[in-house]
Amino acid sequence: MAGSRPTVSRSSAPAGNALIGQSGGPTVVINQSLVGIVQQARRTPTIHRVLGTRHGVAGILANDLVDMTRESDANLEKVALTPAAALGSVRKKPSPDECRQMFDTFQKRDIRYLFYIGGNDSAETANIVLEIARAERYPIRVFHVPKTIDNDLLVTDHCPGYGSAAKFVAQAFMGDNLDNRSLKGVKINVVMGRHAGYLTAASALGRQWEDDGPHLVYVPETEFKRKPFIDDVKRVYAEYGRCVVAVSEGIHDAKGVTWTQKLSSTAERDAHGNVQLSGSGSLGDYLAGMVKQALPGVRVRADTFGYLQRSFAGCYSESDAREARLVGVDAVKYSQHSTSGTVVLSRAPGPRYKCTTSLVALKRVARNTKSMPRRFINKDGNDVTKAFLDYAAPLAGRLHTVGRLRGI
Amino acid sequence: MAGSRPTVSRSSAPAGNALIGQSGGPTVVINQSLVGIVQQARRTPTIHRVLGTRHGVAGILANDLVDMTRESDANLEKVALTPAAALGSVRKKPSPDECRQMFDTFQKRDIRYLFYIGGNDSAETANIVLEIARAERYPIRVFHVPKTIDNDLLVTDHCPGYGSAAKFVAQAFMGDNLDNRSLKGVKINVVMGRHAGYLTAASALGRQWEDDGPHLVYVPETEFKRKPFIDDVKRVYAEYGRCVVAVSEGIHDAKGVTWTQKLSSTAERDAHGNVQLSGSGSLGDYLAGMVKQALPGVRVRADTFGYLQRSFAGCYSESDAREARLVGVDAVKYSQHSTSGTVVLSRAPGPRYKCTTSLVALKRVARNTKSMPRRFINKDGNDVTKAFLDYAAPLAGRLHTVGRLRGI
Repeated sequence: MAGSRPTVSRSSAPAGNALIGQSGGPTVVINQSLVGIVQQARRTPTIHRVLGTRHGVAGILANDLVDMTRESDANLEKVALTPAAALGSVRKKPSPDECRQMFDTFQKRDIRYLFYIGGNDSAETANIVLEIARAERYPIRVFHVPKTIDNDLLVTDHCPGYGSAAKFVAQAFMGDNLDNRSLKGVKINVVMGRHAGYLTAASALGRQWEDDGPHLVYVPETEFKRKPFIDDVKRVYAEYGRCVVAVSEGIHDAKGVTWTQKLSSTAERDAHGNVQLSGSGSLGDYLAGMVKQALPGVRVRADTFGYLQRSFAGCYSESDAREARLVGVDAVKYSQHSTSGTVVLSRAPGPRYKCTTSLVALKRVARNTKSMPRRFINKDGNDVTKAFLDYAAPLAGRLHTVGRLRGI
Repeated sequence: MAGSRPTVSRSSAPAGNALIGQSGGPTVVINQSLVGIVQQARRTPTIHRVLGTRHGVAGILANDLVDMTRESDANLEKVALTPAAALGSVRKKPSPDECRQMFDTFQKRDIRYLFYIGGNDSAETANIVLEIARAERYPIRVFHVPKTIDNDLLVTDHCPGYGSAAKFVAQAFMGDNLDNRSLKGVKINVVMGRHAGYLTAASALGRQWEDDGPHLVYVPETEFKRKPFIDDVKRVYAEYGRCVVAVSEGIHDAKGVTWTQKLSSTAERDAHGNVQLSGSGSLGDYLAGMVKQALPGVRVRADTFGYLQRSFAGCYSESDAREARLVGVDAVKYSQHSTSGTVVLSRAPGPRYKCTTSLVALKRVARNTKSMPRRFINKDGNDVTKAFLDYAAPLAGRLHTVGRLRGI
């Protein structure tokens, strides 16, 4: 595909310094990628010093850089296991003027390699820097290293960061399903994911017994309507005397308006006193209210998992950690033969899970996102399919073992 | 203290069957206690069969019992690692009539020992059963085995279940503090705890660096007022450009009215008269709105940790798991020499953490709860003290290791 492949350099890799940035919502393995880049860059003869920018492009503009050339490996290994962006993150798209300002910093610090770790917005930032650098004839190699708990990047099989968040959500539902089995009632859990349902779908990964929840899973790839939802809950409750529901924060109506948006506009109109309905807990509380009305007297609770999904210390997927390191290491390797690109993961065919990396053009991943394919969602739009579980299980890795009394 | 010691039987322990129940909000180690009772009971010659009641006293009334005499040890060990009540739980206080009905079941099943795992309400239930059994001259030995994430039982140094919930909260704040450090702003997290601030206080256990959050900790032991809260947040934000706040769901005004009650017109109450505080995001959203008004333009977010704190699969404290098993085992041992009581933990003096059990009268633990002592809360009522951290650290056990770039 002309123009969509990474640019391969015939000439040798330039000598100079490398700069690493982190951007967007952090994950629990984003520092694995950082450490992978630092360690591989230090092994690369053309790269002299390894710098980091604090809070992504903001740090470049403020000339707020940190030198990681002599960080001890022991400390780097601790950092790799640390959630959230060790360099600080940012949500910022640089203007052309800001890019030119960044080149001043690059020139002063002799930066010839930029590695930017982030999601689709970060890939776009990298692409903007690349295009303006080319227009201005500023010689820099630019690489995007993928991360996102949403798993919504184009081209790649999956995104580093997703597997660990999926494991958190799966284990949260494993425990919450058991809690609900202990005390009965209806429990609704709101999961992160504005446009893509991958993380909400991961709620089903821990199911073992036929009656295990989540019994219902609603993702933003399908329309969410009140009546079918209430009918679903009533049916499950009638069967098991309980019901656990996974709902994406991005569920929306036929016009694509999210329920959270609907609630914030209603809250503004209905506001009395200081009470605000908009905010993190509102969707769960609203849905719980809906179920309470439909099932009077039934114990109904809602939780919104929130930032724990991307930041909880001590819950990560081994394979996710390994791959997050790998995309960092390989980005540096690619930088010796190519001038730009984004590192993507491809799953090898066969029964045993295995992934390899390749490099594709930045603009193929920049800006846009992907949703879950229809084959991952069941016909009624209230659960995931076996195809999804087969896809996601190796990414989340080994889950906590739970048992059930046999009651002989 | 006359009347407040467990009744010691001069005669030998009766021969018959044992019945185990679980009650109240579950924990991630409540099944350790269950398994401890089952295994020790099977080793005890006077106990013939080991039965469980599904959903506590409700299962006794419905004659819904399960036989655990022949559960394999391998399966029991899996169950021990499983969050939530494997037998099912309940929130129910039996009436005298219901107690008499329960004795019918006991008689039919030759039950001579009752072990009831739960919090202060469950101790009350056990005490009611004991007192009516004595009045009716029904021969049964009744033991309460403590559990609660709130850590609010009287007499005992701490409660099984608390350490693991404390570890969850500590690791949640470790990660969330790093997330907040990455993207800045004000973050408010609402933690479980109706009357006691122990779990909210555990948010501080993971702090390592001087600027680590939570920067502010508010517990129900002190009055919560708008102005000092906003002043605190402004001061921290001015110093660090960010602020992480831990707030108990039970914070209240000078009259003892909780902020959640103020926000909710239709407060739900359970059978023991407790108002539902969990399972709603309203308090967090409300406090976030308050801060947004006071600090315009600042990124403010709120999360309510909810049921994950007591049910998340795969996060437990090793010492908590060990002690939860121990109180179960020792309850059975005590049952051979005493006719009733509740198992409490005492901390041995000395630098190395060590706990032993003893037995005290049911009524000393039943019904009432304890709050955190004032020496665990700082003078300004917005943080915990070193005394608290020294108390709680061995209970939560080893936390996930995090690192920070040295930036040489």
